Amino acid sequence: MTEQEPTSEKQAARFAYTGLERVIHEKARLGILTSLASQSQGLLFTELKELCALTDGNLSRHITVLQEAGLIEVWKGFHRKRPQTLCRMTKEGRARFLDYLAELQRVVADAADARTVDVPKPTGMEGWTPV
Amino acid sequence: MTEQEPTSEKQAARFAYTGLERVIHEKARLGILTSLASQSQGLLFTELKELCALTDGNLSRHITVLQEAGLIEVWKGFHRKRPQTLCRMTKEGRARFLDYLAELQRVVADAADARTVDVPKPTGMEGWTPV
Repeated sequence: MTEQEPTSEKQAARFAYTGLERVIHEKARLGILTSLASQSQGLLFTELKELCALTDGNLSRHITVLQEAGLIEVWKGFHRKRPQTLCRMTKEGRARFLDYLAELQRVVADAADARTVDVPKPTGMEGWTPV
Repeated sequence: MTEQEPTSEKQAARFAYTGLERVIHEKARLGILTSLASQSQGLLFTELKELCALTDGNLSRHITVLQEAGLIEVWKGFHRKRPQTLCRMTKEGRARFLDYLAELQRVVADAADARTVDVPKPTGMEGWTPV
């Protein structure tokens, strides 16, 4: 149906996006990491909760996942005389986040064509039926 | 710990990324949709399988999800005298994919700072302990 040449070796797996590390790609964790990316000193639990619009339970769960994956470190201490939790990106986390980001930019570039393409009527599809 | 001002109303949920529609955001489906985005005539099942490096079972499962979500349409027919399945993006799917893409570009822009930030030693964190 398509006019393109048969898929070449080079094209194979062109859209597999293996660089989109799953632990980072999950929507809420992507928000947490993006907010931490520019905050080298880290962010408090309460700040993250508000910035990412997450419940206490959800944020706690995602923090555990990110910590166990080595992407962030968690500190306990006091801030304004109240016990607080501080999260910040590890050096390894930053490197892996940058790798992820490079792949994400590739997705955006690959998808750019979508803006200019119209969906045509199904011409040339005689004998084809929708299912 | 951070130098920033308390989170303002405007900043609240700044990193929630509500525009990252979950059905599109899943890694394999993002690959499928990105490959279909520039192919207005659609792609055959066998082409998608190779381009996205998916097994028959996985691709079938994701196609069902995308079809039920109204993002793609599925056609059955013959190509080179063999029964084939053709997938292509619906008009609605294209619009929703573009919305998703706009939000994805916001993530990339927000994360851009990560490239230039060094992780400092934990100074000014007296009384804080890693957990």
